[in-house]
Amino acid sequence: MNPLDNIRVVLVGTLYTGNVGSSCRAMANMGIRHLRLAAPNLQNSWEEGERMAVHATDVMNAREEFPSLEEAVADCVAVVGTTAREGLYRQHSKTPRDAAPEILSLAETGPVAVVFGREDKGLLNEEVAQCTHLIRIPVDEGYTSLNLSQAVMVTAYELFTSTGRYEPPHEKAPPAPQAQKAQLMKNWSRMLCDIGFMKEVQADHFMQGFHRVFSRGVFTKDDAALMLGVARQATWAAKGGAAVRDGREDG
Amino acid sequence: MNPLDNIRVVLVGTLYTGNVGSSCRAMANMGIRHLRLAAPNLQNSWEEGERMAVHATDVMNAREEFPSLEEAVADCVAVVGTTAREGLYRQHSKTPRDAAPEILSLAETGPVAVVFGREDKGLLNEEVAQCTHLIRIPVDEGYTSLNLSQAVMVTAYELFTSTGRYEPPHEKAPPAPQAQKAQLMKNWSRMLCDIGFMKEVQADHFMQGFHRVFSRGVFTKDDAALMLGVARQATWAAKGGAAVRDGREDG
Repeated sequence: MNPLDNIRVVLVGTLYTGNVGSSCRAMANMGIRHLRLAAPNLQNSWEEGERMAVHATDVMNAREEFPSLEEAVADCVAVVGTTAREGLYRQHSKTPRDAAPEILSLAETGPVAVVFGREDKGLLNEEVAQCTHLIRIPVDEGYTSLNLSQAVMVTAYELFTSTGRYEPPHEKAPPAPQAQKAQLMKNWSRMLCDIGFMKEVQADHFMQGFHRVFSRGVFTKDDAALMLGVARQATWAAKGGAAVRDGREDG
Repeated sequence: MNPLDNIRVVLVGTLYTGNVGSSCRAMANMGIRHLRLAAPNLQNSWEEGERMAVHATDVMNAREEFPSLEEAVADCVAVVGTTAREGLYRQHSKTPRDAAPEILSLAETGPVAVVFGREDKGLLNEEVAQCTHLIRIPVDEGYTSLNLSQAVMVTAYELFTSTGRYEPPHEKAPPAPQAQKAQLMKNWSRMLCDIGFMKEVQADHFMQGFHRVFSRGVFTKDDAALMLGVARQATWAAKGGAAVRDGREDG
């Protein structure tokens, strides 16, 4: 099973539908679909919420509402509170990154609530007391107050990345084989003489520099083919070629 | 020096001031203060921007504006583009977590631009081509389109946490010493007999369970003092005490 399916994002006493909508979008971006509102205190219409949810209105429309936090988390095997402040009961909070593996592991066994407080006052002490775990998002001391949906995003992002389900993009072209790289250096050396950039006797010196440039990071077959095309074309032009050819054409 | 001081968040062709304001708040939360707008295409008034920036209006008001991306990044030693899409020139993107150490290392040497595209179209190919590095934020395949300020937040958060400048909160009370824990187990054992919870012969069995409960995570001196107070009070009450005393008083 996907443990993210067992995450319940619980917003307590939320004031603005725009923050609900933005939170839904952030949740959907991170593969989390279940929203609960506990004792919502909404001051504006759902129009703003829909505008901010964009393509996550399905998450928003499927929300469950409860009169209190206690009822919203009744079926949960763990209740993870998010808090920005230090203080009584809040000292043993972890960062979302450190807490994510345990949260996901608990979510393998049943629903896990991740609870976010009001825009203005956060979670009350009596709500924090209902939490089995506490997390605090790392912030700069100069401005510690996070927007509600931004707090949802960072937390959801840490849970999502902790699942290991995201595959970073890979180069489609394979790395250039050594023989192709050697050919590249040879052809460039010849070309750089042909165009008058350097003299034969300076080649060893200059080519060290080009070797360095071509060795930064992954250098693919396509990259090498492209640079070989440049060399061919420059040589051709230096020798009096008139028409411009596509350097990659016969690479 | 703090490398975050050399980060320049560059928003290209941004449409809505609300996203600029939210981005400023996210930046300030993560210790990043320098905003540049490249070819802004703003469709609404700064009122919404100010509302979303909340206490980060100083970041917003100190913004620099440039007619193009090229001019906005002219003084930068590296240009990090953010992209949601795959495609030409976008294959070698890294996650913000993987890229953060190198970005910070470059920021030790000079200004580094971190570039975010338009709300609707992201960065154009000609803008991606100006980037020396590309990052892509991990997202669920079901909904890959991030809100602009949420993308700024996740990226800024990864840069901030990568600096290692954030100290996670620590327990103020030191862990309970072993002698205090032993005293706790002894007193609880006596109390549980006194209140009729268990009989003397069952004590070894039951106390294993309480030992397990008291050994979860860090158990501080204050925690131990609190639980010792409970034992004392329960024993006193079970023996016919009439008035309620504060169990911690003579702990």
